[in-house]
Amino acid sequence: MKRLKKILAATLVVATLVPSFVFADKKDYGSAKNVIMMIPDGMSVEALTTARWMTEDKKFVMDDLATGLVRTNNSNTPIADSAPAGTAMATGIKTESPFVGCYPTKGGMPGAIEIEKDREKQPIANVLEGAERSGRSTGIVSTSNIQHATPADFSAHNPDRNNYEDLGEQQVYQGMEVVLGAGSMYLSKESRKDKEDLISEIKNKGYDYFDTLEGMKASKGDKIWGLFEDKSFTYEIERDKANKPSLAEMTDKALEVLSKNDKGFFLMVEGSEIDWAAHSNDPVALVHEIKAFDDAVKVAKDFADKHKDTVIVIAADHGTGGITFGHRNITKGYDKAPLNEFTNIISSAKVSVTKAAEEVKEDKSNIKEVMSKNFGIEDLNEEELNLVKNEKDTASAMGRIISARSHIAWTTGGHVGGDVGLYSYSTAEGAERLIGTVHNYEIGRYIEDLLDIDLDKLTEELYQPIRKGFEDKGAKVEFNAKGANDYEAIVTKDNDKIIFPVSKNYAIKNGEKVDLGGLTIYSTRSVYVPQKAFELVK
Amino acid sequence: MKRLKKILAATLVVATLVPSFVFADKKDYGSAKNVIMMIPDGMSVEALTTARWMTEDKKFVMDDLATGLVRTNNSNTPIADSAPAGTAMATGIKTESPFVGCYPTKGGMPGAIEIEKDREKQPIANVLEGAERSGRSTGIVSTSNIQHATPADFSAHNPDRNNYEDLGEQQVYQGMEVVLGAGSMYLSKESRKDKEDLISEIKNKGYDYFDTLEGMKASKGDKIWGLFEDKSFTYEIERDKANKPSLAEMTDKALEVLSKNDKGFFLMVEGSEIDWAAHSNDPVALVHEIKAFDDAVKVAKDFADKHKDTVIVIAADHGTGGITFGHRNITKGYDKAPLNEFTNIISSAKVSVTKAAEEVKEDKSNIKEVMSKNFGIEDLNEEELNLVKNEKDTASAMGRIISARSHIAWTTGGHVGGDVGLYSYSTAEGAERLIGTVHNYEIGRYIEDLLDIDLDKLTEELYQPIRKGFEDKGAKVEFNAKGANDYEAIVTKDNDKIIFPVSKNYAIKNGEKVDLGGLTIYSTRSVYVPQKAFELVK
Repeated sequence: MKRLKKILAATLVVATLVPSFVFADKKDYGSAKNVIMMIPDGMSVEALTTARWMTEDKKFVMDDLATGLVRTNNSNTPIADSAPAGTAMATGIKTESPFVGCYPTKGGMPGAIEIEKDREKQPIANVLEGAERSGRSTGIVSTSNIQHATPADFSAHNPDRNNYEDLGEQQVYQGMEVVLGAGSMYLSKESRKDKEDLISEIKNKGYDYFDTLEGMKASKGDKIWGLFEDKSFTYEIERDKANKPSLAEMTDKALEVLSKNDKGFFLMVEGSEIDWAAHSNDPVALVHEIKAFDDAVKVAKDFADKHKDTVIVIAADHGTGGITFGHRNITKGYDKAPLNEFTNIISSAKVSVTKAAEEVKEDKSNIKEVMSKNFGIEDLNEEELNLVKNEKDTASAMGRIISARSHIAWTTGGHVGGDVGLYSYSTAEGAERLIGTVHNYEIGRYIEDLLDIDLDKLTEELYQPIRKGFEDKGAKVEFNAKGANDYEAIVTKDNDKIIFPVSKNYAIKNGEKVDLGGLTIYSTRSVYVPQKAFELVK
Repeated sequence: MKRLKKILAATLVVATLVPSFVFADKKDYGSAKNVIMMIPDGMSVEALTTARWMTEDKKFVMDDLATGLVRTNNSNTPIADSAPAGTAMATGIKTESPFVGCYPTKGGMPGAIEIEKDREKQPIANVLEGAERSGRSTGIVSTSNIQHATPADFSAHNPDRNNYEDLGEQQVYQGMEVVLGAGSMYLSKESRKDKEDLISEIKNKGYDYFDTLEGMKASKGDKIWGLFEDKSFTYEIERDKANKPSLAEMTDKALEVLSKNDKGFFLMVEGSEIDWAAHSNDPVALVHEIKAFDDAVKVAKDFADKHKDTVIVIAADHGTGGITFGHRNITKGYDKAPLNEFTNIISSAKVSVTKAAEEVKEDKSNIKEVMSKNFGIEDLNEEELNLVKNEKDTASAMGRIISARSHIAWTTGGHVGGDVGLYSYSTAEGAERLIGTVHNYEIGRYIEDLLDIDLDKLTEELYQPIRKGFEDKGAKVEFNAKGANDYEAIVTKDNDKIIFPVSKNYAIKNGEKVDLGGLTIYSTRSVYVPQKAFELVK
């Protein structure tokens, strides 16, 4: 039945608007009421293994859920960034840096669509938007600011991942039920360029808004919005456990709220700072971030076991740092080296390398004291001292010294291109797990299928270039830059004047607010509005 | 039915000899007539991805078969070596370096058994030995000498992986139907310390023996033994394609011969030199070795598609070299760098770095010419020249220079500890694929279950300490070192004298050969014989 339904839907849409590529490999994986997508940002396979060795049990909850590998490349280059890789998982379409939720302008890499000039930078509907419109509840959870690439990929659209204020504004108007993370400064009147007070707007919209662990625990709301830091969480190892929630605690709260909806939910959970720790070559922070992510996986898995009809998908967007469990200093003897040679320093550290590095003076004259006090390293040699002296990023230099003494190496401060682990778990009857070496975009298609939604059709419904639609109806379309990062489109015809404020979900027709059922997006190339906006003129 | 049979068997054996640990997690995966185990030795996930980018299709046959990850640690240390890791996959029991097919003396790591003093270094029955005794045909294929750790793990037993002559001798008496690879020098009268002429012995045993591609193609034998090099194959990129078979060609021939048996077969295929290329940090050799391995996977998959009732399992024993697709020289800009920046030099190379390095003079004075001529690198800088000057291993230095210019890094000349990819494929009705993050030993248990054999029971049948069994019967047991690496056990009782030549499958009772149905193994701690040997004295 489902198959037939799909074929029919496909036929209808193909006949009207959607290009042929999008149905090339649609597969039927079954259906699920609830889908939880979890992203350990920047976690390579070697990082996972390294962290696992530092745990007490030497085992992660996610281990048993492994089902294959994920190819992470962008539409145009082999090494991914979070913005395009998250977009692929959220929308089923690979794109390029630094796009969030927008069609690529460059292709050519495996798994990429053929570039269509007309669609360049057009917003692409994502699984969260589809889930919300299927009657499900939706939510995002991260330890970064929620406007950061990965959570934004699932809830906003902008060809520039750094446009936090715009991405954040869209999220306020997305209609999600749960937002938990950090980044209140990008929503507050005081710091926003457009001076909009989006925190108040969140409250006006009926969200229970809080910024402490206590507030989160006390909340009985059906819609919650918690931002626990202005910018982002500290590393897990430095978290103020009395007042700031863990990723697992946020995941637990999100599931409590989302599961109130009988129609199900979609939730995205990101372990954001695995990536940051890896960028800094900070093995201590990395290990604690990965552990914290796995704790959140445990919460999700326990939920799925109790609430059947739930699917969990876990995949990193890319690896970061090029960490390897092994080092040129044990080119001989690697198979004889006991575990404690790898774990001694890192497992016993009580502070991240990044945090300890803050104690280092600008002239680095106290490096010996800092390394001794924080990591028990008393015998820095000349090569190590030179690395600290010559490396601009002191934390990275310290991280690499600690790592090398643990037979662990890093090859870059950037991302790497290796396949990452794919994990999936289903307690939904008939819903298959995703198995194989898949492209990141196939994860988006998998979730789309499980939720029984149609992203390509939804893109057509939600993101139409404003000019053509209205001009076809004889209306005039103008753009107005009210200020920095603050745009609107103005449509006039006869005596009607309709204002479309960018990044909001409503228009103002002759002074009255009209719900558009979707966002107005400015994506540098054009302004996009929901198809039904065109009905506002006769 | 199968389940019941197992429980019964388990109960019987537990009641007699076998310790309790071995049945802790026996699972029922179904059954298969044919099982093909393929090992890309030393292939980390990042190596796989790197090689994939250098192919024309940017896709491997094995990609679609991915089903999870494999934990590779030894019984006692976190970073694996081939000998213990292959043993785990062959026998279902993790062990330590440098053991081939023998119980560990040290444990403590995840997935390791509890050490039993009595079993230290005892040979462990492997899936090939079990398959042979189930009526199936068996074979091994490698590009290394067949006595090398991985093929030896599936066909021999010795606590020292370097004892090629002993391991090789055992293989001659294992009763396999197919042996294809290299290493004739370890079997030839001229080079063996014990001066035994095992090549002639192979022929006497009815094998069709050959050493050229032509010979292999022409062979119509039901038992074949082909050794194409004295020691090991050249790297694939330098292979004499007219006279030496590829791994894929050997795999094809092996399947042709093995599939003559209506009862099925077990075949182990190793891409041996992926590991060697990675040890040398030679990206050119690595890429071609991995491609050649994938070509062999294609042969196996095509076979499985045509001959249903076949299961393929693919897993590396460990990663090597700590290669990453990404480098500190693109800590910025990694997501913008186009593919050709990574592939230009490596994909167009016509010679392995290792081979090119042979042209470098001892004083390294011609390094510029060699790099220019072979890799088109005309502008070696001072840092690169210093690396060549200071690194003892010229090939490794050159490999790292070529790699760095391709934004590819290496962290070691040894092994790394990261999980490796798990791949499995089944055309056998009811035979499940192996899915999840599994320990390497679980692969052995998986194959054991598919073949419907019992390795723990077989170990008891095949490998009993000779002294106790005979002394219990009132016989006297002596050991005789006939020469270097040439031992025998002599059992006397009353007028009977039975000689057990080590590493052969027969005894000589009062001057007459008696087939033992299994090998006599000397494993430094004791000599082991099949249980039925004890029947030779009353």
